[in-house]
Amino acid sequence: MKYTVIVKPKKAILDPQGKAIKKVAENYFGKDIGDIRVGKYFEIESSEPKETIEELANKILSNDVTEDYEVIES
Amino acid sequence: MKYTVIVKPKKAILDPQGKAIKKVAENYFGKDIGDIRVGKYFEIESSEPKETIEELANKILSNDVTEDYEVIES
Repeated sequence: MKYTVIVKPKKAILDPQGKAIKKVAENYFGKDIGDIRVGKYFEIESSEPKETIEELANKILSNDVTEDYEVIES
Repeated sequence: MKYTVIVKPKKAILDPQGKAIKKVAENYFGKDIGDIRVGKYFEIESSEPKETIEELANKILSNDVTEDYEVIES
């Protein structure tokens, strides 16, 4: 099966990487183009059930203090 | 508008970060759980048209030698 895991900084957490990219984009376009938040994206090809991928996302791919994750089966 | 940009290593490109995570997962679960490829995920809140976000993805968020990108309007 193919799974996609998306890991994002929690809403309340500042995202310095996103802020940095926003600045670069502002310089490039000559104007503010909006807010950017940066996360991680994982494509997993596995014969394991979704629960295993949830555990992988929770224990290894994300930090549950600062990040939220989502597992999508595709 | 809300846009999502996903940046992935091109198929032909080795993904050492993915390979490293695969190893960690293998140790954690005690077995091979499949292949993992790592990309980047951007959430952009912008009033600009999709073309601007495409240009941002192409020029700033990705490296067109090693990565593919996708812009999704949501």
